[in-house]
Amino acid sequence: MTAAPPCVILNEPQLAENIGAVARVMGNFGLYDMRMVRPRDGWPQERAWANASGASWPLDNAKIFDRLEDAVAGLTQIYATTARARETALPILTPRDAAARLAGAVAGGQACGLLFGGERAGLETADIALCQAIVTIPIDEKFRSLNLAQAVAINAYEWRLTVMGEAPARFDNQEAPAPREVQLGMFEQLEAELDHAGFFHPPEKRPSMQRNLRVALSKANMTTQEVRTFRGVITALSKGRGRVLAKLAAAKAGK
Amino acid sequence: MTAAPPCVILNEPQLAENIGAVARVMGNFGLYDMRMVRPRDGWPQERAWANASGASWPLDNAKIFDRLEDAVAGLTQIYATTARARETALPILTPRDAAARLAGAVAGGQACGLLFGGERAGLETADIALCQAIVTIPIDEKFRSLNLAQAVAINAYEWRLTVMGEAPARFDNQEAPAPREVQLGMFEQLEAELDHAGFFHPPEKRPSMQRNLRVALSKANMTTQEVRTFRGVITALSKGRGRVLAKLAAAKAGK
Repeated sequence: MTAAPPCVILNEPQLAENIGAVARVMGNFGLYDMRMVRPRDGWPQERAWANASGASWPLDNAKIFDRLEDAVAGLTQIYATTARARETALPILTPRDAAARLAGAVAGGQACGLLFGGERAGLETADIALCQAIVTIPIDEKFRSLNLAQAVAINAYEWRLTVMGEAPARFDNQEAPAPREVQLGMFEQLEAELDHAGFFHPPEKRPSMQRNLRVALSKANMTTQEVRTFRGVITALSKGRGRVLAKLAAAKAGK
Repeated sequence: MTAAPPCVILNEPQLAENIGAVARVMGNFGLYDMRMVRPRDGWPQERAWANASGASWPLDNAKIFDRLEDAVAGLTQIYATTARARETALPILTPRDAAARLAGAVAGGQACGLLFGGERAGLETADIALCQAIVTIPIDEKFRSLNLAQAVAINAYEWRLTVMGEAPARFDNQEAPAPREVQLGMFEQLEAELDHAGFFHPPEKRPSMQRNLRVALSKANMTTQEVRTFRGVITALSKGRGRVLAKLAAAKAGK
């Protein structure tokens, strides 16, 4: 069991300077695992190192992904930082509360991540649906444009305060949720079967229906065993179909 | 008595970009009174405004001084932020503790300031001697190079949390979970369909399988709307069956 601090996932970051500034604050507050999804200007970029003021290790070891789904594979708790209020059923946490929860999860051996959107667009609702919670920094309503590295800094600062301080009041005694890719596998199976059953109509509503389903199921934080059970449930409900058909066919053939 | 938030004093700041970034985080966290002592490249500087992302008001109204003593005139509480341990008799505070003390002082009608040194040199001992306390951000000993705007951000964030009142542990955005009987209705529908599909085998395991399913789904704390959606899912998956059967029967009848 490694008690690795949360990784920092940058989704479609735009400016190499900001990526470097993120590495720097990660270094300041003891984080080191940086992941990026589709950095706009490619990777590596000299200016990131130039702007990291010597905190090169998060950049040297940064992992690059084409899809956010791949970047979060293996993680069991992912919190999305976003300034905007959202229509979502996910819990909305302060950075402090998020740090406390993450510390509990890490103490329990879980692999955790903090997800940040790109400078311009932030996070899409579909990205947030991959997460277990939203972290919102309590900035002034009148000026909400928070720099990416600042958002990382506030979260990283709270993380460090939490792990430097008292051991978390309560260790997370819950069994770890299934890694994200395992949950995604279940969602995809469910959606394929629902497609087959003609559930998603009208078709233009498919994305929002899919998102609502994923959010509702994500809230359960299913363990790997529970996901396995649920995949069995989905199979049973949809294969029941096959089984009934087989019986029917057998009965017909017997006649 | 004006309850003005603390001013931010930058002593010999070097980079206009950083001055702009400081203005931006001041805007994010509700600070607005910026003072500068001998900015290296003179004042005003276009790049500061360009880097403030619209938070122009701290820059527009910034006061410029030749001597730190003049910049702090009229203030009754000045706290110096520095990363380095110092030979000093001044109290050394965390940003959180500093924010609490400053909030108390401001509430009592005092004019307060947060003092930050320049990017390279930081603060001299003589500068710190003008202050009532030192604020130290708990950064990692192994990488102490904290960006100026980040140092301001952490302090401004703690200030804002303090004056907003206790940080809400969690914003209460959560819709109430569906009443228990509504959830039970969903469980019963699911179990009936699973019975139909022959899912529960061997039969003696039915009670524990049922319990595990209910626990996993209960963790989602589904709202009434989510329960409704899921009942639709269950129906779709199992009726898919009926639909296929009907098609098959129609096909057979057609033959």
